[in-house]
Amino acid sequence: MALVVSPLISRIEAPPIAEAMTWVRPGTRNSELLNLCQAVPSYEPAEALQSEIARLAHDPATHLYTDIHGIPELRSALAQHMAADYRGLIDPENVSITSGCNQAFCAAIMAVAQRGDNVVLPVPYYFNHQMWLDMLGVEKRLVPAFAEGRAYPLPQEAAALIDNHTKAIVLCSPNNPTGAIYPPEIIEGFYELAKAAGIALIVDETYKDFRSTPEPPHGLFAKQDWQDTFIQLYSFSKVFALTGYRVGSLIAGGRVLVESEKILDCMAICAPQISQRAALFGLAHLENWKQEKQRLMETRREALLAAFHNPRLSYKLMSSGAYFAYVKHPFNTATAKSVATRLAGEHDVLCLPGTMFGADQDSYLRFAFANSPAEDMSLLIDRLIESQTWG
Amino acid sequence: MALVVSPLISRIEAPPIAEAMTWVRPGTRNSELLNLCQAVPSYEPAEALQSEIARLAHDPATHLYTDIHGIPELRSALAQHMAADYRGLIDPENVSITSGCNQAFCAAIMAVAQRGDNVVLPVPYYFNHQMWLDMLGVEKRLVPAFAEGRAYPLPQEAAALIDNHTKAIVLCSPNNPTGAIYPPEIIEGFYELAKAAGIALIVDETYKDFRSTPEPPHGLFAKQDWQDTFIQLYSFSKVFALTGYRVGSLIAGGRVLVESEKILDCMAICAPQISQRAALFGLAHLENWKQEKQRLMETRREALLAAFHNPRLSYKLMSSGAYFAYVKHPFNTATAKSVATRLAGEHDVLCLPGTMFGADQDSYLRFAFANSPAEDMSLLIDRLIESQTWG
Repeated sequence: MALVVSPLISRIEAPPIAEAMTWVRPGTRNSELLNLCQAVPSYEPAEALQSEIARLAHDPATHLYTDIHGIPELRSALAQHMAADYRGLIDPENVSITSGCNQAFCAAIMAVAQRGDNVVLPVPYYFNHQMWLDMLGVEKRLVPAFAEGRAYPLPQEAAALIDNHTKAIVLCSPNNPTGAIYPPEIIEGFYELAKAAGIALIVDETYKDFRSTPEPPHGLFAKQDWQDTFIQLYSFSKVFALTGYRVGSLIAGGRVLVESEKILDCMAICAPQISQRAALFGLAHLENWKQEKQRLMETRREALLAAFHNPRLSYKLMSSGAYFAYVKHPFNTATAKSVATRLAGEHDVLCLPGTMFGADQDSYLRFAFANSPAEDMSLLIDRLIESQTWG
Repeated sequence: MALVVSPLISRIEAPPIAEAMTWVRPGTRNSELLNLCQAVPSYEPAEALQSEIARLAHDPATHLYTDIHGIPELRSALAQHMAADYRGLIDPENVSITSGCNQAFCAAIMAVAQRGDNVVLPVPYYFNHQMWLDMLGVEKRLVPAFAEGRAYPLPQEAAALIDNHTKAIVLCSPNNPTGAIYPPEIIEGFYELAKAAGIALIVDETYKDFRSTPEPPHGLFAKQDWQDTFIQLYSFSKVFALTGYRVGSLIAGGRVLVESEKILDCMAICAPQISQRAALFGLAHLENWKQEKQRLMETRREALLAAFHNPRLSYKLMSSGAYFAYVKHPFNTATAKSVATRLAGEHDVLCLPGTMFGADQDSYLRFAFANSPAEDMSLLIDRLIESQTWG
């Protein structure tokens, strides 16, 4: 008799990326797969960073645990980086280094919410956010992130969902899955809403380095008492091509850091030291490399936008930005999953169905276009057009 | 106004190691600190392993995510290693690679238990086990792991604690904090108890490589249907001196793996690839190096045992084994914490008070002796004798 597992976990769907990989049928393919399902930089880490990691492998300190919140030099360097980027004030004591941004989200949510509480979440959402909330038995109160003429949620619509059991509002900007970059005034509207309610505003800013403007994404870090409301989540995975190294961050007020230290001790003890030191090297030495990759990503996005102008294409680009494009498929009666599995199985295009990001997202597909060179965008369009002939 | 944090988390004590570090007062010390608070190998990873990690830094695949459960080669190699070591049968599909053993525990518990359920836990326990159960609101039912003449819990005492809401029994052998190696028949007694109740037996075997016998720690993996009951947790941190690399494992039946995949996706996405490949290299190439370190640890333990025979010493060794010694201090009315803080502040000995491992452990201290060379054991005894003059 197999073990009885927790119904809180068993009722959750299998991890999306792992499931999507099963839709590909390598034996039957005629052309090379366009894998646009997971957000992974298509290039390696900078050569100098690879050499630094190789050097660290022989450093006698690298094999040791670090402080739970990370090595002090990285906490300081990230505080300085964020303060400059957001034109705000951040103390190294407000910075916690995590094993990736997902873990930062886990810690942030557990620090403020428990079963029976609720959290406001725009839909479509990043699927791991939804999964973690469901695992903890924290109710998600969904607000549309997406309507005619805009690709961001409205604070006033969220306000109506907040009650005494609401502990946080969760945003993701630049957004996963839509790619949309929320306007600063919208993020600040959510901040004021959260502040007035005495709850947390948690913003996942994993993709913040892939915007096409030097302006700060928002002004929250410049507010005097941001620590009482704002929790920022970030990742070094995309910016320095370190996905497999698992290093990210959580920036918050002291009280949240005190609680998240306990949570991170249980989940991780610390982020991998070699990865933390790699991130530190990136912040100190890879500004030019980063800007070069930002331009590369911008080129890809422009190629994608241009390619979608094809008059023969019935797929419609709803939103795009850093890393992702959110697309409406032309099959009115087909589920997003059936479209995605056919694209994978018959047209060598791997993307994720919108329903992985929200139950009502059956009209949409997410393309993680950052994975592919600009010249692949017309190939993508060709294959999408080809698929339009389905009965 | 600071954010309201979750009472499930705020009522938990601060992480023990981080707290203990604050007891050291570097400015006032006359002699070098004997740091016996955290279980960390005192030596570096093998030179060949450091070179392999340096090589991996330049491998184009290293920066990528792996499967959630880890790279297939490592899953296979670990299945093979465990099958040989335990003389049992383990399929690679039963193996999940985690970012350390703490994370494996997090996933195992969440997979089988939720708030309102309970878990049987011998006391003294490993503090992160208790912390995680408390964070999830899973009740711990404590059974003594320790009595006159033995340093292990009894299945029959645990049996009385099991009811319809019990989801698992958690053991740790070799034990943290006592160092005790549980007899195979005791572990098998717990297995039969768990099996009869239809619940999980979760055994943390982080220190299994530091026993002085080639006999299997237990026969569970040789049982035909072990997957229906047994969940083994393990770590590569101690065996290959990879603590800062964060790589461990969870071995269980398919149903538990299906659920833990969802949990690990949220907490980690995957264990760091460079660390997974390091562990793979260790399993394939470091058997001799491992045995040499096992002998070194045995030497340290023998030196500790010999040193405790000092007739002037009033501290009493209650239990010792892989990595740890559990010691009764001679101060009847003093709390373990007051003894530990004075040892740190006045005698340059850093150890952990028993109360970090259970509320009723005020008579005890845990020494992680593996951190120190054999010649330091007499120094430790000198300092303990010195401390006996306290009013």
